[in-house]
Amino acid sequence: MKRMLLTISYDGTLYHGWQVQPNSVTVQQILSETLEEFLNSSVSLSGCSRTDAGVHAKEFCCHFDCDDSIPPKAFIRGLSARLPEDISVIDCRQVDDDFHARYNAKGKTYAYYILNSNIKDPFKERYAWRIERKLDIEKMNEFCRKIVGTHDFEAFSSAGKTVADTVRTVSECFVTKNDDIIRLQITGNGFLYNMVRIIVGTCVEVSDGKILISQIDDIFKNRKRENTGVTAPAKGLFLEKVIY
Amino acid sequence: MKRMLLTISYDGTLYHGWQVQPNSVTVQQILSETLEEFLNSSVSLSGCSRTDAGVHAKEFCCHFDCDDSIPPKAFIRGLSARLPEDISVIDCRQVDDDFHARYNAKGKTYAYYILNSNIKDPFKERYAWRIERKLDIEKMNEFCRKIVGTHDFEAFSSAGKTVADTVRTVSECFVTKNDDIIRLQITGNGFLYNMVRIIVGTCVEVSDGKILISQIDDIFKNRKRENTGVTAPAKGLFLEKVIY
Repeated sequence: MKRMLLTISYDGTLYHGWQVQPNSVTVQQILSETLEEFLNSSVSLSGCSRTDAGVHAKEFCCHFDCDDSIPPKAFIRGLSARLPEDISVIDCRQVDDDFHARYNAKGKTYAYYILNSNIKDPFKERYAWRIERKLDIEKMNEFCRKIVGTHDFEAFSSAGKTVADTVRTVSECFVTKNDDIIRLQITGNGFLYNMVRIIVGTCVEVSDGKILISQIDDIFKNRKRENTGVTAPAKGLFLEKVIY
Repeated sequence: MKRMLLTISYDGTLYHGWQVQPNSVTVQQILSETLEEFLNSSVSLSGCSRTDAGVHAKEFCCHFDCDDSIPPKAFIRGLSARLPEDISVIDCRQVDDDFHARYNAKGKTYAYYILNSNIKDPFKERYAWRIERKLDIEKMNEFCRKIVGTHDFEAFSSAGKTVADTVRTVSECFVTKNDDIIRLQITGNGFLYNMVRIIVGTCVEVSDGKILISQIDDIFKNRKRENTGVTAPAKGLFLEKVIY
């Protein structure tokens, strides 16, 4: 028996997120079925996190046990060839028997893409939130600097998904611009439900002047969802990296 | 009555090419329906060329007549908003009454993308032909230089689609590499059916050593499809620009 860590990449457009659920096609379901067919045995697959419907992943991690003699590298090609074109296995390695894709994760990096253009681009439409009005990168970065640090992020979390502890540490958060693509990168030790998407939505409202930088401290203190911005669309969000 | 030239961009993955045909969804059909709804009148839409099923376009041109007072710029936003996410109108301008999107075209530029990697990438899979074995850029460019010029391209055209004149002039053809993406760019005054895809397939076979540079002159002379390479998959092909 050995424990394997798979790193996969997927275009989430057609999936209802990672986690298996009734009546929806999910990445975990497709990957489990493919893995079981490949190994010809049942497999329990544990992911590093749930992801929302429509969210993409450059590097998503999950683990499983197998007593097979298949070398790790063989999973990369063997599974990728059997998976649909929007899911790929990009790495596979053996890990310690007590390793857990979720609990061993020290942090995650997400990227969010905004297409700041009044021209629709069919090749970016699946992977970015298009905003026509000109966004203010300076202001957005000013907001990002307020996000960095250890805060109670309850106001940046979707209601109805309460967890006991809403304090998280964000170690980096910044915005860059390349032509008409704006990219927000954020790294933290953990993220609440919809936290990145609400941070992005709030960042855009700060750029628009609807929310002021001077209000952010109070927003953290009051912990009310109504004080933060819209939840940015899932399609612009990419899980970039899981840090172990 | 005025004649308008539309420039559109589309991800061809889900379409059976440009031209309306029974029992298949095409870009022309979707655009015509959207335009007729927008103008509330029937419209005849003429494209710059047919494109194959699954081929993409960065800039495809088509024209139509309307007696509407809508300013050209209004078509860009108005149509794009009504079109599905994989089709966009990126420009619209008034042209002379006798302008024709197809017959006035002096040439076209196509680009073909190859992902030269043994790792499947779900974000490139829709837009590139993935080849695992290492390709030889030097050899590919040597082949491209043989393609430039005025030649009888019948051997580079799919059988069964014969046209009277199979002589075409290619003014540029070259390959560049950026990380694991190989891009072939070709410009010509006209292209036969599947010509670019067969040139790409032949270029790859030259890289593999299955076809020799020294054979190319004979291939042109003998005009036999059996002497050229495979037809590269549609998904890697982009119409980049129509030259008027």
